[in-house]
Amino acid sequence: MSSTSEAAFLAPPTGKPVGQSVAMHRLLRKLYPIGRSITGEGVRQTLRMLEQYLPAGLQVQEVPSGTPVLDWVVPPEWNIRQAYVRDTQGRHVIDFANHNLHVVGYSQPVAGWFTRAELEEHLHSLPEQPDLIPYRTSYYGASWGFCLAHRQREQLQDEVYEVCIDATHDPAGSLTYGQLLLPGSSEEEVLISCHLCHPSLANDNISGLVVATALANWLADRPRRYSYRFLFVPATIGAITWLAQHQETAVPCVRHGLVLSLLGGPGQFTYKASEAGAAEVDRAVALALRDLHEPHELRLFSPYGYDERQYCSPGFRLPVGCLTRTPFGEFPEYHTSADNPDFVTQQQLTGSLRLLRRVCRVLEQNQTYQNLSPYGEPQLGRRGLYKTVGGGLDGQQWQMVLLWVLNQSDGRHSLLDIAERSGLPFQLLHKAAVALRATQLLA
Amino acid sequence: MSSTSEAAFLAPPTGKPVGQSVAMHRLLRKLYPIGRSITGEGVRQTLRMLEQYLPAGLQVQEVPSGTPVLDWVVPPEWNIRQAYVRDTQGRHVIDFANHNLHVVGYSQPVAGWFTRAELEEHLHSLPEQPDLIPYRTSYYGASWGFCLAHRQREQLQDEVYEVCIDATHDPAGSLTYGQLLLPGSSEEEVLISCHLCHPSLANDNISGLVVATALANWLADRPRRYSYRFLFVPATIGAITWLAQHQETAVPCVRHGLVLSLLGGPGQFTYKASEAGAAEVDRAVALALRDLHEPHELRLFSPYGYDERQYCSPGFRLPVGCLTRTPFGEFPEYHTSADNPDFVTQQQLTGSLRLLRRVCRVLEQNQTYQNLSPYGEPQLGRRGLYKTVGGGLDGQQWQMVLLWVLNQSDGRHSLLDIAERSGLPFQLLHKAAVALRATQLLA
Amino acid sequence: MSSTSEAAFLAPPTGKPVGQSVAMHRLLRKLYPIGRSITGEGVRQTLRMLEQYLPAGLQVQEVPSGTPVLDWVVPPEWNIRQAYVRDTQGRHVIDFANHNLHVVGYSQPVAGWFTRAELEEHLHSLPEQPDLIPYRTSYYGASWGFCLAHRQREQLQDEVYEVCIDATHDPAGSLTYGQLLLPGSSEEEVLISCHLCHPSLANDNISGLVVATALANWLADRPRRYSYRFLFVPATIGAITWLAQHQETAVPCVRHGLVLSLLGGPGQFTYKASEAGAAEVDRAVALALRDLHEPHELRLFSPYGYDERQYCSPGFRLPVGCLTRTPFGEFPEYHTSADNPDFVTQQQLTGSLRLLRRVCRVLEQNQTYQNLSPYGEPQLGRRGLYKTVGGGLDGQQWQMVLLWVLNQSDGRHSLLDIAERSGLPFQLLHKAAVALRATQLLA
Repeated sequence: MSSTSEAAFLAPPTGKPVGQSVAMHRLLRKLYPIGRSITGEGVRQTLRMLEQYLPAGLQVQEVPSGTPVLDWVVPPEWNIRQAYVRDTQGRHVIDFANHNLHVVGYSQPVAGWFTRAELEEHLHSLPEQPDLIPYRTSYYGASWGFCLAHRQREQLQDEVYEVCIDATHDPAGSLTYGQLLLPGSSEEEVLISCHLCHPSLANDNISGLVVATALANWLADRPRRYSYRFLFVPATIGAITWLAQHQETAVPCVRHGLVLSLLGGPGQFTYKASEAGAAEVDRAVALALRDLHEPHELRLFSPYGYDERQYCSPGFRLPVGCLTRTPFGEFPEYHTSADNPDFVTQQQLTGSLRLLRRVCRVLEQNQTYQNLSPYGEPQLGRRGLYKTVGGGLDGQQWQMVLLWVLNQSDGRHSLLDIAERSGLPFQLLHKAAVALRATQLLA
Repeated sequence: MSSTSEAAFLAPPTGKPVGQSVAMHRLLRKLYPIGRSITGEGVRQTLRMLEQYLPAGLQVQEVPSGTPVLDWVVPPEWNIRQAYVRDTQGRHVIDFANHNLHVVGYSQPVAGWFTRAELEEHLHSLPEQPDLIPYRTSYYGASWGFCLAHRQREQLQDEVYEVCIDATHDPAGSLTYGQLLLPGSSEEEVLISCHLCHPSLANDNISGLVVATALANWLADRPRRYSYRFLFVPATIGAITWLAQHQETAVPCVRHGLVLSLLGGPGQFTYKASEAGAAEVDRAVALALRDLHEPHELRLFSPYGYDERQYCSPGFRLPVGCLTRTPFGEFPEYHTSADNPDFVTQQQLTGSLRLLRRVCRVLEQNQTYQNLSPYGEPQLGRRGLYKTVGGGLDGQQWQMVLLWVLNQSDGRHSLLDIAERSGLPFQLLHKAAVALRATQLLA
Repeated sequence: MSSTSEAAFLAPPTGKPVGQSVAMHRLLRKLYPIGRSITGEGVRQTLRMLEQYLPAGLQVQEVPSGTPVLDWVVPPEWNIRQAYVRDTQGRHVIDFANHNLHVVGYSQPVAGWFTRAELEEHLHSLPEQPDLIPYRTSYYGASWGFCLAHRQREQLQDEVYEVCIDATHDPAGSLTYGQLLLPGSSEEEVLISCHLCHPSLANDNISGLVVATALANWLADRPRRYSYRFLFVPATIGAITWLAQHQETAVPCVRHGLVLSLLGGPGQFTYKASEAGAAEVDRAVALALRDLHEPHELRLFSPYGYDERQYCSPGFRLPVGCLTRTPFGEFPEYHTSADNPDFVTQQQLTGSLRLLRRVCRVLEQNQTYQNLSPYGEPQLGRRGLYKTVGGGLDGQQWQMVLLWVLNQSDGRHSLLDIAERSGLPFQLLHKAAVALRATQLLA
């Protein structure tokens, strides 16, 4: 149950140490080819691979198809063996074996000959991005379809095609998700949630999976005030299933939460606030972005997006925001075959991890202190906290930090409050709080 | 007691149907020539004419002169038979018969010869608008005067003039006002107040009278949650008299209110908020303006202006704002003979009516709902509320509307709150609420 | 105990009247040469001189060295008889007698020969302002030093120098401060605090001392609602000593307070708010600056600066802001020999006094009134408060002032609230309140 070392993450399974950014990108490349959906073997394979890199035992849950979860029902498990469109010469003009975006997710099985006109009704392509395969799903409608590059589609000339989708929707199957709990000294939890249902899309959301994995390794090696719960769940139905199963247990413990996605692609950070809008996690992320001088955009909550929709629904109202770089739908590679491992850089992954570490530090270190010498300023000089040359300005910033912490520590202002009001870096304020506590000036 | 049809308003009394904007402008032309003041026959004549166009019985009140009303006393009734200034050749150089702005409102009677110097002290003209007759009143000072074009004034050359103002201030007279109540399913009221004391000024405020009349007809034909009370009152003393007489009855029922004026002249809408500043009516007007993409200006409350001064006084603090187009004093025709029927366009009257209908719709439809499936998002797809192609963006706006209503309907946010937060049109949100209620997702 | 006349301030002690701005600047020149520190004879001499100009008895307190005051201890009393650096030819290359900035404040006594290298470690100069002597202190470190112009320092060529600082740190001495109380009809106090510990620095803070002295004279001749307490204290330790000695008596009576400094130098006003940030004094200063059309900057509180640090500490949280012109550290003459009497102008001193008088007026006159005729507008005309020509705009601003006071005087809004909301000058609103009270419309 104890955490493995960070090194384990950095270079499993060979043991040869590599840099963290290299390691994250390698894991991303390994996860990329797996054909995932909201249920099925691809999800299990993904979780087994993540488990190798995680610092503690990943708890994998299988929830039977047909299980009622909140307002939903767990769908039949979908698996696909092969799928193709074959022309009259027997050539596979579209083949799932070439790219797992070629089949619309959750397609019904089909086998037979179709006229080109009939087939066309089941094809999806992007006329304005004619070289890219789009990503499409149809989880809750009984349909089938193929996705392909528009140029490829234009070359379909035959009158008839043989179509095969060899897929199963097993009502006796299950939905699979993984969760990892890193216990802290408190039962209060920080929830980190990533969706793992997208096949062969690197930024959306393998980037989230690998950054979360790296964050878990970093946290595992440190003392933790909070417990950290990492969720690797299929989007929507996975979050809903987890909420349904933990409504009485983990849900009431969640104090802060983040949905992670799109963390390896281009663009500055975009943080979408929780429904509350100024929850501690919202402020911690904004502060970490400010202190790291990261260009970024802060957006208000809206009920569309990733699984923060579920966590922030009115029955739960968990303080969960969503951190991405360029948000979904706002970059041309989104939900296409161009969202491949080359689209994700080591640098962006590493920058995302750095930001998340900073956010966790703020959450861990944010406390409300009490100045034990609140009448006037205490004499910092005789405690060795302060330069004593009254007329000069040396050491002025450090004095400022100490003075801000002392002045605002009236039991009503947290370090986060002080960081916002003073404009001073959170880490400096925390350092000052530690120094002041060591001299019995703060409790 | 039941309402007449809108058609009745559109083409009374001949019955030949005309467009609403034509009808409003025709009524305005009919009302224009009447010589009105804060009391007297002109007010009664105006109310009799409005009654023909209103959808239900207009209640006309006569309040005897001398009646104490709040801090005021109803003044003697003023009527005027004739008034002129005659030169030594017997020519009527100024004649009330030519324009009823020629006499200062509430002038004392006068008859006799005056030197030109003496006369000059009783003349009002506009040197910078030399062709226009100004509008002046002197309700509570015992004086008299004539208003005339500055060019006309400059032609007065005689040494002496004969002056006649054949007016009466009858202490046994009364103040007259009209009110129309359209009862709704609730006793809570929306107050619509217009001043009707200005003579021969088309925008100020015959425009308000005719738009209010059209609005009353529109409301009469619809189911109403609120009761609507239309007041046609002389400015200041009329509103004060109504407040004094309804302090225990109607006043406590007023939930929202608008003073209407200057709705047919040029310029974008200007809305002056109630004293509270963010009352529901203030927000409803701002939202209607936003949703209709009307250019507009929102102004803060100030205690100068129209009868919102009285309704918002500290003893009442009714949530009553004031809707105009270009506000009083800010267009050159204001309070001059240039504010005539040609200054008011059908288009502006119709635009004002459209805005007011939208405001009433917002007030009527604004409710706070409760999401009955608040844990996670309900599955909209199986209820036919939602497109099911998960990866595409079709129908995205409609999804957004549904999701906003569901997410915010936690019993604490009204549709108006949701419209403000989401930026979505109120009417779409209302439509979503109706659809969600029909599927038992909302109560 | 009664106040002397303002004339006494204007021209003591000769009696020949001079203008106030001349008088303030003359006093500043007299105070400039005195060698002050946080204790010692210079402080006593300064207080004796101020006493001649103050309108009532200045209470001078001597607090023995070694007395515990809050977290601090009153330091030994420091006095200095002579100090110099002498070269091998016996020339005084640095001499305290030439400028009392030459010695680091609270320097330890020293006598003997030093190599130039040894001496250099005790010298302070400003390479970028080579003609100016810097101001340095070392109150709580046992060190010594000399300050000198950098050009002068560069001329030190000898191998050895004789150094003499003939100073005493008397543990049986005391700390001296002065306070003046001008009692008002209430025991609630306005605190005006100036630091008096800086030697030969004109703007910092002899300007504060003389403007406070002039303000005390102005206040002494007027009826006062509040009691006014003027403090002339050494920075930090003086404010802390006063707080320690008045924790149970005066401190709970302080309703508003200002720290005054840097009021005679260049630049627009800068007001730093109290910790509360929107205390009545903060709003009064902002309003006075607005009404006087003074260019200015409003800054948020920070726990660095002058003695507002002590008054705003969490145990006291007194509503005390800090008024300066260009703040400390933001003008090149700051804490150098260039901050001399020529740097301070009569005009700036007078402008500062004018602003402070205005602030005091706002504090004195700020009241929350009750409209006694709150239902509708009262009829101002018959009370002679109001022009009666209804249609014209004459006298409109005065009407506005009356109407704002009446509308907002619902017992919840003070005149200061009304001034902020209406944008109208405070003094006009006060005048209106007086007029309305005279007609029994306001209580």
